[in-house]
Amino acid sequence: MNRILEEVIRQNGATVDRILSEHTLGYVVSDNVANAVAETSFDNTSAQAIVKHLNGLLVSTCQSVVRDIDPANKLCFMRLATRKFEYLVAPEEYFTITVVQ
Amino acid sequence: MNRILEEVIRQNGATVDRILSEHTLGYVVSDNVANAVAETSFDNTSAQAIVKHLNGLLVSTCQSVVRDIDPANKLCFMRLATRKFEYLVAPEEYFTITVVQ
Repeated sequence: MNRILEEVIRQNGATVDRILSEHTLGYVVSDNVANAVAETSFDNTSAQAIVKHLNGLLVSTCQSVVRDIDPANKLCFMRLATRKFEYLVAPEEYFTITVVQ
Repeated sequence: MNRILEEVIRQNGATVDRILSEHTLGYVVSDNVANAVAETSFDNTSAQAIVKHLNGLLVSTCQSVVRDIDPANKLCFMRLATRKFEYLVAPEEYFTITVVQ
């Protein structure tokens, strides 16, 4: 599992650098199985908070809600605009990527 | 409460018509206090499902999550891209507007 993730992170290094050079505060990549931080540009406390709340609790609730409304549907991407930031969450099969901008 | 909502719906009638004439499947406006459908372009069953799951459960979870990460922050707008549709949810003080496109 971790090797898949590391491989993906390595392959997308250039894209990550490009995204970070624009109006982005940072990103967190979390492992879906362990629900742990895999790669982040934040400090550990902020990253843990985002992983625990956003990637852990919210993404699974969202997926359930989308499936409750239409069982043949599936969540692809989530954008949360808040007063201070915008959270962009991309849930994948093995990992979840959250970008804060 | 209902009078405020009816007033807002009446004032925004033209905007609603414009939005609906584009690539939109429909919309639901729900009352935050009673958690009931106030105005919709869907049939009652679909509207009830959206209000119950999206506006009732998900918006409050989202607001808690955003506040858990940063207590001074507040949810403004939520976009859920799914395989079939995109849900755009705008939580306001007295009502929540959901557009499906």
